[in-house]
Amino acid sequence: MIDKKNITIAIDAMGGDFGAEPILEGLIQALEEVDFKPIVVGDRDIISSYMPQYYLDKVEIVHATDVIGMDEAATDARKRKESSIYKAIELVKEKKAHGVVSAGHSGATMALASLIIKRLPHVNKPALATLMPHKDRRKTLVLDVGAVTDCKPLNLYEFGVMGGAYAQEVMGIKNPKIGLLSNGEEDTKGNELTKEAFKLMQDIDGFIGNVEGRDIFTGNVDVVVTDGFTGNVLLKTSEGVAQAIISIMKQQINKSIPAKIGALLMKKRVFADLIKQIDYAEYGGAPLLGINGCVIVSHGKSNAKAIKNAIFQAINFASSDINKKIEETLIKHNNS
Amino acid sequence: MIDKKNITIAIDAMGGDFGAEPILEGLIQALEEVDFKPIVVGDRDIISSYMPQYYLDKVEIVHATDVIGMDEAATDARKRKESSIYKAIELVKEKKAHGVVSAGHSGATMALASLIIKRLPHVNKPALATLMPHKDRRKTLVLDVGAVTDCKPLNLYEFGVMGGAYAQEVMGIKNPKIGLLSNGEEDTKGNELTKEAFKLMQDIDGFIGNVEGRDIFTGNVDVVVTDGFTGNVLLKTSEGVAQAIISIMKQQINKSIPAKIGALLMKKRVFADLIKQIDYAEYGGAPLLGINGCVIVSHGKSNAKAIKNAIFQAINFASSDINKKIEETLIKHNNS
Repeated sequence: MIDKKNITIAIDAMGGDFGAEPILEGLIQALEEVDFKPIVVGDRDIISSYMPQYYLDKVEIVHATDVIGMDEAATDARKRKESSIYKAIELVKEKKAHGVVSAGHSGATMALASLIIKRLPHVNKPALATLMPHKDRRKTLVLDVGAVTDCKPLNLYEFGVMGGAYAQEVMGIKNPKIGLLSNGEEDTKGNELTKEAFKLMQDIDGFIGNVEGRDIFTGNVDVVVTDGFTGNVLLKTSEGVAQAIISIMKQQINKSIPAKIGALLMKKRVFADLIKQIDYAEYGGAPLLGINGCVIVSHGKSNAKAIKNAIFQAINFASSDINKKIEETLIKHNNS
Repeated sequence: MIDKKNITIAIDAMGGDFGAEPILEGLIQALEEVDFKPIVVGDRDIISSYMPQYYLDKVEIVHATDVIGMDEAATDARKRKESSIYKAIELVKEKKAHGVVSAGHSGATMALASLIIKRLPHVNKPALATLMPHKDRRKTLVLDVGAVTDCKPLNLYEFGVMGGAYAQEVMGIKNPKIGLLSNGEEDTKGNELTKEAFKLMQDIDGFIGNVEGRDIFTGNVDVVVTDGFTGNVLLKTSEGVAQAIISIMKQQINKSIPAKIGALLMKKRVFADLIKQIDYAEYGGAPLLGINGCVIVSHGKSNAKAIKNAIFQAINFASSDINKKIEETLIKHNNS
């Protein structure tokens, strides 16, 4: 464990959908709350124009002019050595930074992390993990949500180990319950992939067997393991349901004056809380697990609060023993 | 097309989680609204005890004493020839009924439908389809949600054809938009299965390419095609999100008096409407497509309203030309 105030985080200032402003604003908010060492990667003039001198004095800038656009292919990222995300990831490789946060092209970020920083020695595939709210006001970790579209059973086993380590070392859950997402709770349920993965995952401490989509939101399980295709569908379906419910309520509220008054009375106390519970900005970004370093992939549409929380995630991740824990568990499994 | 009042529907009175009562109550509600010919399959004494003579005069009873329990294996269903679901499905096979509704063991219902009624000649695998609400107050058809856990690309192609036919012939959507569920909208997105299915589905009238989980709830697409594993996860995740949102709101409402007053003002106008929109009882059951007949699989926990709506679904399905349409489309595809 490293003391948090000695943690250096590289922040890609350029890649997000809304440019450098929300990212630098998020960095300023983070600096107001926590003492750490930021390296901001991006166009020096743009960075200087958005950050007051007081904060500029607290950061190191690594100049980068190129930006990988959201509509570009991730496969070309390896050639873009002057891009902000390439340079930010290189800082982790060169041990100049403990971790990196980027709201840029997530495919490029994941590809470059594997290429430059490399995977942990005993990990076959990295996984992108996301936090989802559950009704007891805590969070469930779901992985993979988009790093590995076609998985093998061994990948899911590794995701279980990595998710368990994140829950323990970063989220502070002492004995995390780890479930395999399936089409039913019974041991016999599953598709060809999950049935094979189920056998391997029996070895994982805290493995509770098959879980269903609804368990993510009840708090019955701390870590939910699935392939990157299903995880991505699950994530976008959840967003869709939440948006549809809010939209249906809004339509009805606007149709009647008593309902409008009711909504006003509930606004601060109920709706603001609900939005906070389901707002991804509260959760920061998605940690990419299995990389020999700390990489946080933020949503392209991140606002300042989301970036601030992603930076906090990176600090917690980078100061933890998660990667050591993952390697130890996988080595033990290989030798057993 | 058959006139609806000449449609005969076999209703399995025995299989649901709550026994015969909600099923027979749903049947009575259906008879009050629509003229059709019901055959009730189950224990004659139980049926007679729950139905007033006025309604008993309108139904035919086929006596069956055995019930396949929810916890029994679907694989043994073929031996249970005296069970209510077996006898109900046999009525469709023998052309004594146009369709069947069962809230019993869904695995057994699907297995027996394939075994006894058989698939349509050009269909390789049947699919269970479900209706999901979207914010424009119409419904999106999602299939498969549990009939075929491990799919081949050809299965997904057939699901697209069958879903399109259901949307056209039963839901009355003239030119349904059919999408393939994927991890992104771009043509290049998908896993190995969906990438191959995408090529085959180009042939389907109304195919709009890849769609994401959130599109189900926006009304951008009428029919969403996926494998039975992913579809089942999607369904249960959606239920979980909706329940979690309602639960989070309830917790907050109970904490403050103004919020309680607000909730009261919104109760009838907003929350009742929301519950109605997301309540599966409003949607009836799940049609099993690709069978040479009409089979509606209802939720084991169906209340009377859900059964009533499932019966209406069966009447609409059985009086439509959907199966003729599916066969014509598949034959045309095979010859092209």
